[in-house]
Amino acid sequence: MTNTCEIQVKTKGNNHVVNITEQVTEAASKCGIKNGLATVFVVGSTAGVTTTEYEPGLADYDLEAAFEKIAPKNARYEHEETWHDDNGHAHVRASLLGPSITVPIVEGRLTLGTWQQIILIDFDTRARNRTIVCQIVS
Amino acid sequence: MTNTCEIQVKTKGNNHVVNITEQVTEAASKCGIKNGLATVFVVGSTAGVTTTEYEPGLADYDLEAAFEKIAPKNARYEHEETWHDDNGHAHVRASLLGPSITVPIVEGRLTLGTWQQIILIDFDTRARNRTIVCQIVS
Amino acid sequence: MTNTCEIQVKTKGNNHVVNITEQVTEAASKCGIKNGLATVFVVGSTAGVTTTEYEPGLADYDLEAAFEKIAPKNARYEHEETWHDDNGHAHVRASLLGPSITVPIVEGRLTLGTWQQIILIDFDTRARNRTIVCQIVS
Repeated sequence: MTNTCEIQVKTKGNNHVVNITEQVTEAASKCGIKNGLATVFVVGSTAGVTTTEYEPGLADYDLEAAFEKIAPKNARYEHEETWHDDNGHAHVRASLLGPSITVPIVEGRLTLGTWQQIILIDFDTRARNRTIVCQIVS
Repeated sequence: MTNTCEIQVKTKGNNHVVNITEQVTEAASKCGIKNGLATVFVVGSTAGVTTTEYEPGLADYDLEAAFEKIAPKNARYEHEETWHDDNGHAHVRASLLGPSITVPIVEGRLTLGTWQQIILIDFDTRARNRTIVCQIVS
Repeated sequence: MTNTCEIQVKTKGNNHVVNITEQVTEAASKCGIKNGLATVFVVGSTAGVTTTEYEPGLADYDLEAAFEKIAPKNARYEHEETWHDDNGHAHVRASLLGPSITVPIVEGRLTLGTWQQIILIDFDTRARNRTIVCQIVS
């Protein structure tokens, strides 16, 4: 049995971290599945999905500092030469983080820790409307 | 058909790499599924799951050196200002690595390479009892 | 219902980025599944799987620059002391990227964005024949 739920999120871009735990939890409970897998997948190549303790220190500062070390905003990117745009770092960060996580559903609940939330990080350089597909299989 | 197995691991924290291949293999074989998916998900926001060739050089030195580059232990983290604790780097490392991997099961076997083991990395700054949920769907 | 498809890829190693979207799409359409999950898993511990906008700037330059920051080719690796080989950085990069992604299939189609392709990155220091397992569950 497979259930699909699309989650729509408005982001500010620029490493905006959005907590989508509630929407995924709702998708999982709505479909009535007791035991299975919930895959959370972001459509697009300048955003990624992971988990974190969602609090302002990590979400608004610390995560970006790490990505700035890996793929600095102001470095030279061949991607920007190709398209004459400014989001080479956003693509690189998104590829490293990855577009998907998969969370078990056990007895009707996602097996997240108390301080573990599902987040979308939008690395693009502008505000975006993002589509996240939550696919639940049991 | 869904089967759930909880794996309990005692870690030393501080980037401790634990080989959990045997436990996941056992979970997969115990449930008798021939073909499907095994999702390995760690509960908590200061640990992550991936694969590696499990040998002391990589497990005890090289992986940590990379994480030290991305999120150094002794840098300033806003997270630590929020909670007056010391594990900001652990949260950042865990988010970048990700909490889950999914491994195919084909003819009753995980499709791992000969030199590819499933590992938990515990980034927290103290010893922890970790719960890993192994969810098998076919 | 589970369907397995093995994708064989010849790589040049050395951070070679290979676009495997067409093969995964074909595997998904061949098995006739309308709604489910496609897990793409690379066998081996010196390669990884993710998504990106597949164009030469990102694929041949920008992604490698980021991995060179995290795990430089010419740094010292304990792994190389163990085996007297030269691919310590390849193992570290592969563990950080991860071996698997999972993509939803909705109405017979992978939910990829227009500019989002599935890629294998082979970090090893020589040409390799790689096996990617595409496991589709519904």
